[in-house]
Amino acid sequence: MLDLNGQSANLEANEAQSADNAVKILPSYLAGKWQTSNQDLRTVYHAITGEAIYQVSSHGCDMKAAVEFAKKNGSQIASWTFHERANALKQVASYLLERKEEFYTLAKATGCTRKDAWIDVEGGFGTLFAYSSLVRRELSNETALVEDAWIPLSKQGNFGAKHILTSKAGVAVHIDAFNFPIWGMLEKIAPTLLAGVPCIVKPATEGAEMTQAVVKHIVESGFLPDGALQLICGQTYDLFDHLGPQDTVTFTGSASTGQKLRAHPRFNQYSIPFSMEADSVNSAILTSNANEETIDLFVREVFREMTTKAGQKCTAIRRAFVPAHLLEQVQNKLISKLQKVVVGNPELENVTMGALASVKQKHDVAEKVKLLSQDAQIVVGGHLADFKVEGADANKGAFYPATLLVCTNPTQAKYIHQVEAFGPVSTLMPYQNLQELADLVARGEGSLVASIVRNTDDNVEELVAKIAPWHGRLHILDASNAKESTGHGSPLPHLVHGGPGRAGGGEELGGIRAVKHYMQRTAIQGSPNVMTQIGHSWTAGAEFFEDRVHPFKKSFDELRVGERLLTARRTVTEADIVNFACLSGDHFYAHMDKIGAENSFFGERVAHGYFIVSAAAGLFVDAAPGPVIANYGMDNLRFVEPVKIGDTIQVELTCKQKTPKPLKDPEQKAHGVVVWDIKVKNQRGELVATYDILTLVERA
Amino acid sequence: MLDLNGQSANLEANEAQSADNAVKILPSYLAGKWQTSNQDLRTVYHAITGEAIYQVSSHGCDMKAAVEFAKKNGSQIASWTFHERANALKQVASYLLERKEEFYTLAKATGCTRKDAWIDVEGGFGTLFAYSSLVRRELSNETALVEDAWIPLSKQGNFGAKHILTSKAGVAVHIDAFNFPIWGMLEKIAPTLLAGVPCIVKPATEGAEMTQAVVKHIVESGFLPDGALQLICGQTYDLFDHLGPQDTVTFTGSASTGQKLRAHPRFNQYSIPFSMEADSVNSAILTSNANEETIDLFVREVFREMTTKAGQKCTAIRRAFVPAHLLEQVQNKLISKLQKVVVGNPELENVTMGALASVKQKHDVAEKVKLLSQDAQIVVGGHLADFKVEGADANKGAFYPATLLVCTNPTQAKYIHQVEAFGPVSTLMPYQNLQELADLVARGEGSLVASIVRNTDDNVEELVAKIAPWHGRLHILDASNAKESTGHGSPLPHLVHGGPGRAGGGEELGGIRAVKHYMQRTAIQGSPNVMTQIGHSWTAGAEFFEDRVHPFKKSFDELRVGERLLTARRTVTEADIVNFACLSGDHFYAHMDKIGAENSFFGERVAHGYFIVSAAAGLFVDAAPGPVIANYGMDNLRFVEPVKIGDTIQVELTCKQKTPKPLKDPEQKAHGVVVWDIKVKNQRGELVATYDILTLVERA
Repeated sequence: MLDLNGQSANLEANEAQSADNAVKILPSYLAGKWQTSNQDLRTVYHAITGEAIYQVSSHGCDMKAAVEFAKKNGSQIASWTFHERANALKQVASYLLERKEEFYTLAKATGCTRKDAWIDVEGGFGTLFAYSSLVRRELSNETALVEDAWIPLSKQGNFGAKHILTSKAGVAVHIDAFNFPIWGMLEKIAPTLLAGVPCIVKPATEGAEMTQAVVKHIVESGFLPDGALQLICGQTYDLFDHLGPQDTVTFTGSASTGQKLRAHPRFNQYSIPFSMEADSVNSAILTSNANEETIDLFVREVFREMTTKAGQKCTAIRRAFVPAHLLEQVQNKLISKLQKVVVGNPELENVTMGALASVKQKHDVAEKVKLLSQDAQIVVGGHLADFKVEGADANKGAFYPATLLVCTNPTQAKYIHQVEAFGPVSTLMPYQNLQELADLVARGEGSLVASIVRNTDDNVEELVAKIAPWHGRLHILDASNAKESTGHGSPLPHLVHGGPGRAGGGEELGGIRAVKHYMQRTAIQGSPNVMTQIGHSWTAGAEFFEDRVHPFKKSFDELRVGERLLTARRTVTEADIVNFACLSGDHFYAHMDKIGAENSFFGERVAHGYFIVSAAAGLFVDAAPGPVIANYGMDNLRFVEPVKIGDTIQVELTCKQKTPKPLKDPEQKAHGVVVWDIKVKNQRGELVATYDILTLVERA
Repeated sequence: MLDLNGQSANLEANEAQSADNAVKILPSYLAGKWQTSNQDLRTVYHAITGEAIYQVSSHGCDMKAAVEFAKKNGSQIASWTFHERANALKQVASYLLERKEEFYTLAKATGCTRKDAWIDVEGGFGTLFAYSSLVRRELSNETALVEDAWIPLSKQGNFGAKHILTSKAGVAVHIDAFNFPIWGMLEKIAPTLLAGVPCIVKPATEGAEMTQAVVKHIVESGFLPDGALQLICGQTYDLFDHLGPQDTVTFTGSASTGQKLRAHPRFNQYSIPFSMEADSVNSAILTSNANEETIDLFVREVFREMTTKAGQKCTAIRRAFVPAHLLEQVQNKLISKLQKVVVGNPELENVTMGALASVKQKHDVAEKVKLLSQDAQIVVGGHLADFKVEGADANKGAFYPATLLVCTNPTQAKYIHQVEAFGPVSTLMPYQNLQELADLVARGEGSLVASIVRNTDDNVEELVAKIAPWHGRLHILDASNAKESTGHGSPLPHLVHGGPGRAGGGEELGGIRAVKHYMQRTAIQGSPNVMTQIGHSWTAGAEFFEDRVHPFKKSFDELRVGERLLTARRTVTEADIVNFACLSGDHFYAHMDKIGAENSFFGERVAHGYFIVSAAAGLFVDAAPGPVIANYGMDNLRFVEPVKIGDTIQVELTCKQKTPKPLKDPEQKAHGVVVWDIKVKNQRGELVATYDILTLVERA
């Protein structure tokens, strides 16, 4: 059986069991029931005191039933629209935020400072809020996502296509790491639930208490359908054997555990996407002519990444590259900062770095540092003996000192570019030139992120081109943005999180990209009519409806997609052109200069494009007050044919798409966005201009 | 060792070898050299006559050297811009098209009719042309692809991000199926080369002669860097052992072979994307109230898919679902068409269906039909005895009769939804209602494509929602588009090709999506300046340059990204509003009616949005003839703040992006597209309107 405890299998669990029998057992939430088992228990210890705090076991839980429950009950979320899903997530986020202190209290057992826990707790809730608003802003209020504009596939226009994305009819299994038990779950379930797909979450054993507390509150809140979120506290046992072609799996944790799981034959058999985000050997780079200010920025960033969360972040800087002539200077500055780190019980005010998540983890880091020290010299920390810990017993807690290594010959290194010590550990090394630097960075075999710290006038284009293919994110820091930068180590909802190769090859977050990950993309080929029916957005060439009532007199709810106004005609005269030039001030020669215009692209004087757009509005606008509140924008305007003096234009205005907007303020009148397709044609029926306009329209 | 011959390993190769020693050996093209071996040879036989025609072996070829050659020499294509890559592909396509008859001649040995071969030969070249023009139209003339607009990540605006895609620093290995030896290679190498990534192609042994002939011409043409395209005629041997974190693999062929290959531990270890497109058990569905015309369309489509290429298409219809009450009618019509099929040597004019690709394939189909017939009754074909073949020896050639089965109880079927007979074989079955139909379709466990054949007024929205997650493509056919439809079985360059689950879970084609598949997406975080530097597109907030020369007086080549004009100011008066209303005809109450406007969203009369845009042009346009030829469009116009009577506006026009255009006509003046960022602000510096305008500008 595979060991699914993320980076930190507690191999001693069985021996310790008898002694730990007094502590609580965390239940799993599966098939609508909280379930515990007292077989095959694993014990988790307090990171500071070393005391047993809880046990987990999912032994005997019916994993097949959980998968079926997700598909039968949890899948109800697929019938909700994107906005309904987003509203539910927002409610969940608010509900959790009100209870945040409970999670900060639990976080203490994981060795965190309050600042460390903030990333996990409020960073997690912030991710829910961010995804909720992203989806309400960027997606239509539908259940399926239409990805592109009409792709014409025939000359007469009766056959074409669009791609749509629909919720996968399966379940997403999320296997999370111990270091961010809350954010780690929420950043995955947010896009999954928004995609309309139920989740089964399996946190690492360390930290599971926090994940479990969040799930408990979400279940109690009742904002999600039952079965949309299930929890395994313990192991996955035969869960994977019940997954099929509509399911997805994600994994965050160590590359070695991830690779073990990914080899499950079922994933291959059913082409089950297995998205992996593994710790990686991330880099920070100081540019070759760095000035004093830039050097200080670099030192601050490396220091922060080493000590935040005691270096237990997949994104932390493990390799710090500096130009050879600056090695000593950077090294001295870093040493001086690191020597001031106060390690100990985070409840003490003067403590600046807490403990690792477990004693097992401490020993693992120590072993990795031993490997790294074959390539490099330890210049700070690196030893568990004689190491000062404030307010706690160094032998019982999971404390590890901030540790800096220096490797003077990184091209010959065997371990530095490969081995990740998942703690407050980093290696500083020199580079000689850009190509050597790029080659060294690439020896990490794919990373989540690298920082480039530059002078504000340094050109980094070549460096970026060389190292971008090896990274999911590049963070370019300089004096102009240092105050506003979100930092090297922070994945953000709008940006992809993941990296090639050793970093797992997965992609998380990245805005709507992450939502799409849980949906199936399907090319729909058919007639404009069928496309309008499926996409709820009028497609040029589809049927339209005309009515004696002007569409601007109809409320949002009365309007139908496909409703059209064919306007009166207007003949464009020389007087129009002259008047428009004088009023706008635009006397461009193609409109005003007969000689210039004859030698131009157009061959003769033509009307201003903006006059055509203005005259079109004059033709389609209904002047009296009515449900249309404002025209707030225009998209994709293209002038297709010039309008010459004496040409006669006419406009087709068709209701293309309707999106109701949620009320932000109960005093406000309810409204929605209506997109209108505009086609301006000339007396020969040729298309003169085409565009969409965006209006706010009151509801019924 | 794994067997890499796609669907049709010739297991008898070694025995046959002595007899076949007289036939030619197809060389592989690796590390810049044509190489052959006479060990471990595999023989291919003529599909019509059964004679040995060639042998392949890549035994002893240095696969490691091939990978290194690709990365060292072939990667030169990454330094070309998208347009340079696209132009090279277009030249390759024209070069091949001139030599098309050679490929039609070779196709005869694979059992094809000329019509069948057309899909492969000219369909393949067409895909090159389509991708070439797609990339020139949709992508900038750069080496990296900037995917999104500036994502602000800070309040002051000094920190934000964009996603860019860069060429992976590796090689793409393409393992192709026997059925489309030309198209199958070209549809994959087109997006790969456009992505700037070199390829190694391994065709199936059957058909390899055609692939090899195309590669030979491409190499001779000299349009691509040496090493950008390498060819293995034979087996891959230890090739996969030399792949790493920047490499990709694609596979087209049977699900079972694909799964065997995908299990290679190296792919897991280095997170190497393995994109699989497998034959699947595709469906066609006749809607429940189909009329006579719709029934005929359905019968025609099923018939065509069964017989084209003798049914050897991954996309062919294997399961035909009809409403129970129409089963007999459809069955009779299909039988009557199938009985008229003339199987034989495609050189004869009356022959309508050729042979399968190999005798091995014929036996494989016969075995699969035996399985299917446990669920269903054979109503046409299905037997090799007493089967009439025109102009060839039925026992020597790879002929198989068009075979229709009828399964009256598909919910109980064991094989129909799982087993694919890769030949002219399909099963007809009834359904009772929509839910049963959707469940039956899903039992294929993921397919490439399904057709829905409907009356023009049938609403198929619910059916589409139910089956879309199981498909990569849905083809909705009705009387309105039947003449223009590209057909059930045709993957198209603009649409994704691939499907979930059994179909392999991969995605090919789909326009630019396929190009991105071979690139690494990286979130770049930094200042607007650094983003402008990297993306070659001015980002709001970045430095700008002012000059006494008006930017409209500068040629395309003189203009610099970031060059700005700050215009004179203009005070908007009541007279402007009145004049604009009268000239445009737009007398909307928010502009013209004091009482209406006071009760409106705006609270008082405001200027027309289109007046602001027009007046902005009046402020920034340089009237005299100059390098700016035309303003042909506008994107992303948003009216941010209303302009009230007495407000004073001013415009910032900044050169945002430059894209040179290739000359279509040598008489034409060289030009490029310049995108300008426009910001209209009021006297308080507030943003009033923001948009991009698109202009054509002459080169130096």
